[in-house]
Amino acid sequence: MRNYLLPALLAVTVPVCAQQQENDSLVLRQLATEVLTHSKAYSNLRDLTQQVGGRLAGSPQMVKAEKWGEQVLKDAGADTVYMQACQVPHWVRGAKEEVRIISRRRDFIPPLNVLALGNSVGSGPTGITAPVLEVSSFDDLEAKKDQVKGKIVFYNYAFRPEFIRTFESYGDAVRYRGQGASRAAKYGALAVVVRSMTHGANNLPHTGAMHYNDSFPKIPAVAIGLEDADLLSNRLKGESDMKLYLKTNCKMLPDTTGHNVIGEIRGTEFPDQIITVGGHLDSWDVNQGAHDDGTGCVQSVELLRAFKAAGIKPKRTIRIVLFANEENGTRGGKKYAAEAKAKGEHHIFALESDAGGFTPRGFSFTMPAEKQAKIISWAPLFRPYDVYDFTAAGGGVDVGELYEAIGTPMGELMPDSQRYFDLHHAANDTFEAVNKRELELGAFSMAGLIYLIDKYGL
Amino acid sequence: MRNYLLPALLAVTVPVCAQQQENDSLVLRQLATEVLTHSKAYSNLRDLTQQVGGRLAGSPQMVKAEKWGEQVLKDAGADTVYMQACQVPHWVRGAKEEVRIISRRRDFIPPLNVLALGNSVGSGPTGITAPVLEVSSFDDLEAKKDQVKGKIVFYNYAFRPEFIRTFESYGDAVRYRGQGASRAAKYGALAVVVRSMTHGANNLPHTGAMHYNDSFPKIPAVAIGLEDADLLSNRLKGESDMKLYLKTNCKMLPDTTGHNVIGEIRGTEFPDQIITVGGHLDSWDVNQGAHDDGTGCVQSVELLRAFKAAGIKPKRTIRIVLFANEENGTRGGKKYAAEAKAKGEHHIFALESDAGGFTPRGFSFTMPAEKQAKIISWAPLFRPYDVYDFTAAGGGVDVGELYEAIGTPMGELMPDSQRYFDLHHAANDTFEAVNKRELELGAFSMAGLIYLIDKYGL
Ligand SMILES: [Zn+2]
Ligand SMILES: [Zn+2]
Repeated sequence: MRNYLLPALLAVTVPVCAQQQENDSLVLRQLATEVLTHSKAYSNLRDLTQQVGGRLAGSPQMVKAEKWGEQVLKDAGADTVYMQACQVPHWVRGAKEEVRIISRRRDFIPPLNVLALGNSVGSGPTGITAPVLEVSSFDDLEAKKDQVKGKIVFYNYAFRPEFIRTFESYGDAVRYRGQGASRAAKYGALAVVVRSMTHGANNLPHTGAMHYNDSFPKIPAVAIGLEDADLLSNRLKGESDMKLYLKTNCKMLPDTTGHNVIGEIRGTEFPDQIITVGGHLDSWDVNQGAHDDGTGCVQSVELLRAFKAAGIKPKRTIRIVLFANEENGTRGGKKYAAEAKAKGEHHIFALESDAGGFTPRGFSFTMPAEKQAKIISWAPLFRPYDVYDFTAAGGGVDVGELYEAIGTPMGELMPDSQRYFDLHHAANDTFEAVNKRELELGAFSMAGLIYLIDKYGL
Repeated sequence: MRNYLLPALLAVTVPVCAQQQENDSLVLRQLATEVLTHSKAYSNLRDLTQQVGGRLAGSPQMVKAEKWGEQVLKDAGADTVYMQACQVPHWVRGAKEEVRIISRRRDFIPPLNVLALGNSVGSGPTGITAPVLEVSSFDDLEAKKDQVKGKIVFYNYAFRPEFIRTFESYGDAVRYRGQGASRAAKYGALAVVVRSMTHGANNLPHTGAMHYNDSFPKIPAVAIGLEDADLLSNRLKGESDMKLYLKTNCKMLPDTTGHNVIGEIRGTEFPDQIITVGGHLDSWDVNQGAHDDGTGCVQSVELLRAFKAAGIKPKRTIRIVLFANEENGTRGGKKYAAEAKAKGEHHIFALESDAGGFTPRGFSFTMPAEKQAKIISWAPLFRPYDVYDFTAAGGGVDVGELYEAIGTPMGELMPDSQRYFDLHHAANDTFEAVNKRELELGAFSMAGLIYLIDKYGL
């Protein structure tokens, strides 16, 4: 590939109030160079993922992660660092779950590659042995409802490949993980096996939260790798009386105490106006929680460090929040929003990074159109960084609680989504899967946006 | 991350001749679905990388690769498949190269992680033992020219992190790999060691082509991994009389015969108007040549397959070219251009994919402004696919020969560049480093562009 003409492009895209935007473009360039040259995001992520590791709410690792969060926020130069306590669910996986095909053919089949879904109940010590009913959708389940009783229901709904942004495939398929157990239990199913939420090219199972409908019995639920899902489906075609043996050892314990970890730079002019930036500190227990959401945490902390290093003194209060419990309860986000409401805090914007540490493409927003128009007017400033999309609708799960509670305009970093569901909630979401520069470009993009919102208000 | 409003976005961005663009947008959507659902690109790449492997021009693997190319082009539905012979350089690495620190300290230092540069000469069987002169740049070399004689020159010029697109860092640093040996030989150096062309976070050396200036002696040249480059630099600070032992076993043999592998769909209306699409079939010998440039080859072949599957019958002749020798000679590209010129062929456009199989962001072009304006007018059609940049200047190395010879307008797929130099010309450029969907989105983007150029001319 030959050279690009970036300076020319930049010249073309600087619009009307040229002088102002020229100053801003210099500050953004300064922030980009600072982050790409001196970022601590990657080494902080290494520590969080490799020294703390998986950190589900309520786990001892989460306590370690909170200490890590306090330290990195202090090191980044926060004026104040504090913990905000909240009650969090305390789900434990227990011993390794197990699903086996029991076949009259008596050929050797290794155990299927499965993970119990988060929040699901255990099968009891003897496990469950039952015939399998495969369904392709909830419609298919309804059509076969008379056959469900006493069976293990196998939801084999595939991620649709034709969507461009993979979050659309996820949004389309995730209901089987979330609601599948209760909808099958309604008709007497004993357990469910759900095809993993991934386009992936391997057999790794992907866990994630599920939710019971209290009107129906709580039955075990597991995710299965794609190759094993296909294997199971193929065997069922030739052997309708095949059974599965399923054993899970998970348990929902009483709620326990977790903490949002918060670090602030107090605003010089309008300290009561708060801009929140964050990711979630918790992760699933089966991986290092690198892209989900170690990257969002270290990017948020990096924003603060880069502001300090670049000598930017925000007018408004910038509050970095590492949320306590996104994965299986959103209790951290709920607590943060409830406190903000109770105290009558003035939140002008809340930004989240929880879609992976991949190359940034833009931001999604939920806010009144005239506010979003203001942000869209800054888009040319980001074009030299290949960050170009400010029009999508969206916002993060944790900051979404603030939006729900007090209507705070919100946004989320929008990275390239192609690789996210290859590793989301699976064992391969590790430090090695994160590219240093992609991570840093995301942190820079967040810093640039927050710099502008702080400077011009919203 | 919550949902995006893609349909709304699409509606906003469809401009003036709405009816026409609506039809085109349906065809592009059809091509995208075809590629994302039924692509052979990923499985073809698996075969090329894992069954053929590294395939330098002149190697037996390259002969195997040519057969692979013939077969996949036939399978994709080409009307005609043929070979275009050309003379190619025949450089061989020989036995594993070796560089050791020889220190008075007598502590144990493992051999440094190095690869001989492509086209470089061997050191001879006894190797070279000499003191080391570290230089930070060519300016530094000139300043120290009196100290060069009898030494091994160590070019320790780092990839600059502040560029956004990594090809700029490469363009900035690659002269040390290309010209470093002869510029040091001019002052009597015995060999050169060059810091690898990478931002990388590991110690892998990255090979690549170097070129001798015939006015000076030909001396050995190796690339060194970043960690070892830092180690070497640090030791030199405390130990100026340290020596290196360097042995390389490479050799330039007489030219041999290679082939461009070509497959065509003959145009229905203007068969004499040719549109070329290609990548290079050769790779370095030290990896599987996955991103460089197996991905470009399988994307080009996929374009042809997708046209056939979607029932698109091009008006002009589409010619897929898998070039014989990009890495250390560009002889395939030169031959293709020379033949086109000799035969007076009418080439309306030539497209290359040789910047990695990562998520596409756009295309770079070299052509008269009014032609490029025509392409830019199609940009809204690609926005639903997050392909947004049609303004960069560029074009591929192989199709660049066609541009030089007969002025053919040219372009190159522009994928996200952040990860490319982590693996470019290094051992980790393997099949596993390629994401299926990213690869396919690139193939779709190429197909969409070629569909429009064929339909509307250029
Ligand atoms: Zn998350
Ligand atoms: Zn290449």
